[in-house]
Amino acid sequence: MQFNINKSLEILERTPLVLETMLNGLSDEWIKNNEGPETWSPFDILGHLVHGEKTDWIPRMEIILADITDKSFVPFDRFAQFNESKGKTMKQLLDEFRALRKQNVERLRSKNLRQDDFARGGIHPAFGPVTLLQLLSTWVVHDLNHISQISRVMAKQYKGEVGPWVEYLGILTVGRRQEAVGSRQ
Amino acid sequence: MQFNINKSLEILERTPLVLETMLNGLSDEWIKNNEGPETWSPFDILGHLVHGEKTDWIPRMEIILADITDKSFVPFDRFAQFNESKGKTMKQLLDEFRALRKQNVERLRSKNLRQDDFARGGIHPAFGPVTLLQLLSTWVVHDLNHISQISRVMAKQYKGEVGPWVEYLGILTVGRRQEAVGSRQ
Repeated sequence: MQFNINKSLEILERTPLVLETMLNGLSDEWIKNNEGPETWSPFDILGHLVHGEKTDWIPRMEIILADITDKSFVPFDRFAQFNESKGKTMKQLLDEFRALRKQNVERLRSKNLRQDDFARGGIHPAFGPVTLLQLLSTWVVHDLNHISQISRVMAKQYKGEVGPWVEYLGILTVGRRQEAVGSRQ
Repeated sequence: MQFNINKSLEILERTPLVLETMLNGLSDEWIKNNEGPETWSPFDILGHLVHGEKTDWIPRMEIILADITDKSFVPFDRFAQFNESKGKTMKQLLDEFRALRKQNVERLRSKNLRQDDFARGGIHPAFGPVTLLQLLSTWVVHDLNHISQISRVMAKQYKGEVGPWVEYLGILTVGRRQEAVGSRQ
């Protein structure tokens, strides 16, 4: 599948409602437990997504599209949510994410990007040159990645309860490490 | 986390709406593509979930709770959806799943299960003796497993578009095999 801005927006626009449907009103055991030491709970992941809306995708797009010489991205802080989410409820994080995503999608639409804009570039702190097409594709995959992760983290809470079926449920024994990597941006 | 019927229902009851929010109205490329040969698309997975509602969880619960001697479960057909979903739209599968799940949750609630009921057992075709607690826990994990899988399959459609970020997105390089196992029940 090739990058397409409208098909990307199909995903980016629905993610807040997907997360709300998955998480709003759940018991704390489903949303505050993680997969073990140094892994993230659904609550931590929501904070990470909120921080990304503030500092990552759209600010990096603005750098790419701006009439400036220095196209370097600011490195992303993947632990910011541990402070920023303190004292908040899951409902607050879901609301905050929805509002930020709405603004960011409007911002993206307001640019009326054309085919040649997607080839414009910026400088990633680890990778060097990247394009707007790659940044926007990564934004989409990043949403789907964390939806997948949230569902897996929740599944693992019942790992001890499924008895012999654990053998058929690969989800209960994989994962975890990939997000130590996947949450870098 | 220990099995709890109300916390299990929190998940089982919301899955139809989660799937609808994730999938309804998406372009065919998101829902009809899979991860490669012998893997499933989101459309295939929905058909599998529909078939499970008809032949797996509740029928097996009924066997466990029935006053009969032969407690053997009927083996689950994990390829049934390839015939059953033929000619259907994603919207039809989502509606069918929602209606079946509603009935099944009502059926489960109508049993007014008590703590000692969860220890009652049936005979799985591969594992032998399993309990109602294990069956219901597996039902919950199975939902979460397939939500996670759907999100991963969709993410992979952009694998060629993210450029160097592929290195940070573990989701793009894992998976697939686990469902060849995970879809057995």
